[in-house]
Amino acid sequence: MNREHSVGLVHPRRQNFEESLTLECGRILPRFELVYETYGTLNEDRSNAVLVCHALSGHHHAAGFHEGEEKPGWWDVCIGPGKPIDTRHFFVVALNNLGGCHGSTGPSSPNPETGLCYGPDFPVVTVRDWIKTQALLADTLGITCWAAVIGGSLGGMQVLQWAIDFPNRLKHAIVIASAPKLSAQNIAFNEVARQAIISDPDFHDGRFYEYETYPRRGLILARMVGHITYLSDDAMRIKFGRDLRSGKFHFGFDAEFQVESYLRHQGETFSRYFDANTYLLMTRALDYFDPARETDDRLDLALANVQCSFFVVAFTTDWRFSPERSQEIVDALMASGKDVSSVIVDAPQGHDSFLLAVPRYMDLLQTYFGRIYEELIHAP
Amino acid sequence: MNREHSVGLVHPRRQNFEESLTLECGRILPRFELVYETYGTLNEDRSNAVLVCHALSGHHHAAGFHEGEEKPGWWDVCIGPGKPIDTRHFFVVALNNLGGCHGSTGPSSPNPETGLCYGPDFPVVTVRDWIKTQALLADTLGITCWAAVIGGSLGGMQVLQWAIDFPNRLKHAIVIASAPKLSAQNIAFNEVARQAIISDPDFHDGRFYEYETYPRRGLILARMVGHITYLSDDAMRIKFGRDLRSGKFHFGFDAEFQVESYLRHQGETFSRYFDANTYLLMTRALDYFDPARETDDRLDLALANVQCSFFVVAFTTDWRFSPERSQEIVDALMASGKDVSSVIVDAPQGHDSFLLAVPRYMDLLQTYFGRIYEELIHAP
Repeated sequence: MNREHSVGLVHPRRQNFEESLTLECGRILPRFELVYETYGTLNEDRSNAVLVCHALSGHHHAAGFHEGEEKPGWWDVCIGPGKPIDTRHFFVVALNNLGGCHGSTGPSSPNPETGLCYGPDFPVVTVRDWIKTQALLADTLGITCWAAVIGGSLGGMQVLQWAIDFPNRLKHAIVIASAPKLSAQNIAFNEVARQAIISDPDFHDGRFYEYETYPRRGLILARMVGHITYLSDDAMRIKFGRDLRSGKFHFGFDAEFQVESYLRHQGETFSRYFDANTYLLMTRALDYFDPARETDDRLDLALANVQCSFFVVAFTTDWRFSPERSQEIVDALMASGKDVSSVIVDAPQGHDSFLLAVPRYMDLLQTYFGRIYEELIHAP
Repeated sequence: MNREHSVGLVHPRRQNFEESLTLECGRILPRFELVYETYGTLNEDRSNAVLVCHALSGHHHAAGFHEGEEKPGWWDVCIGPGKPIDTRHFFVVALNNLGGCHGSTGPSSPNPETGLCYGPDFPVVTVRDWIKTQALLADTLGITCWAAVIGGSLGGMQVLQWAIDFPNRLKHAIVIASAPKLSAQNIAFNEVARQAIISDPDFHDGRFYEYETYPRRGLILARMVGHITYLSDDAMRIKFGRDLRSGKFHFGFDAEFQVESYLRHQGETFSRYFDANTYLLMTRALDYFDPARETDDRLDLALANVQCSFFVVAFTTDWRFSPERSQEIVDALMASGKDVSSVIVDAPQGHDSFLLAVPRYMDLLQTYFGRIYEELIHAP
């Protein structure tokens, strides 16, 4: 473990929100809690804060190490002293979204009305709801305007929503490996994952907590199918090809090809730590996200009030959210006369690239955040 | 229902094979039965026979109508009087492959040793095994050489194997929307489908027949994930887009988008008629198929003894077996000095195109079979 450029040991914090929250679905949460981490130091005029939005299975532990753990936060390659989001310059905030399963209030939290876990009674949350709660968190931290909001995949959608809903509360929006809305194929893959979970007898209509079990088989399948869409065909070919685990065919249905045992292992691991109801919520938030829905499918109109600068990054082999999907965002921003830079990074790893230390990608982020920092220190 | 260019009412036939069959896996079937249909008339010198090989979920009922049924055979658009495979000129044979669930001996057939269904005791069959049994069927019909062997997807793999294993028993090989072997991503999708079935508690280790149930949930998921790979992203966009069933969001997990209810319906229908053990066998036959495995990954060497002419067809939007995969077959045939024509048909429907009446595709097949017929009637 290389801790040289690490933010080191970190401790999650919790923020209670006692006021009730009206969600997009019309339902009201009487109170909620968000768990978050911060890295670096907030400057005197509170202008150097960067918000990191997580993707489907992410959480608040984005960088550094937790006591006793060997594995760093999920975006440790990107956040730390000397790294693209340089914690010597920026105050970085990463949270677990509402509805999550890593400490923020979600389906596995106790429902104050019953004392049991919310389970299926937890309301369906949307990207817009998340932005609302993230803004409340910013308020408690005294951050009126983010230097940047950044995220990949579902995280990138949150970035877009920030720019739309709170145009004066961010200077830069960095949207990575994302899309302005899901395609029918994207929704279809989500639906397979959801049906795998819902049809698992151990799901018990979402009340599995009360049965002291969880839909292990459904979660494994959901992760397996998700994982295929995160990797490119090429990445899979390079990583596994048609390699056999034992060098020969056994004419049965045990894992024979390397790719089979890899997927099973990924699914198995995931099923042990991820909440099934949260998985349903996160995929539904993805499905519903469609900022141009209220502007007659005109994304440029939906983005009309945007004030911040945009940086949009896509990866050549990403077939979940292809470069064409990023281009739709860029085109709409251009049509709306906004400040936008964009780049397509050549990387073989598919959608997963946004989480990896792809050198050119890291260089680009480093340069972009260097520019943000320059602006900061030269601000009047 | 348009029965004008139809072969009309058809009746499946059965052929018993009482001799034992040694399979590629080393196991021996003491006896087996194949169900098949024929359309058109075998000519005097038995030179006008065309074999149609089916894909994963296909069967022997390729054309015409069964008594009391409204739905024609699965390739009725292609087989009939005046159609591309013109039954006024050709004698067409379509069978259900060994291991199938439409009448040929398979996992749901009684095991003569126990009197119960074979279930998981049915041996894993390979494409090579199928070709062997298809050749035995040809023997009983007195067909020593096919005018053509044709098939799409997994059917195309059987065509390739015919040309390799029985080079003197076919004049033309027509390989549609196929590949010389599965990629890691292809295997990965198959593995998700298999795990969905195997992990369904109603699968009962493949002995569900004895419990008077079947892994309905697993089959639904398997078909859903399969179906996504059969359609192109474009086809899904055109067919469903992000259309909602009721015009608004309901903030729940019932089917809200059209694509969700379509997939559920597809899965549900499939689960009612397809045998789960057969699904496992068919996907494994796909995984294992790799004719170049014994020639050090040199497909041209594997095809060295081929005698027939090849026609290779791919579809632009097919991402399950992309045009690049067909090109690998064409390149190997060229490198091996064989007679090959090939075409990439522009069609938006993805892999499914091979089953559809895409006009240019139908025209090309009509022309190609016209050429085969010309050769036939001018043969010495």
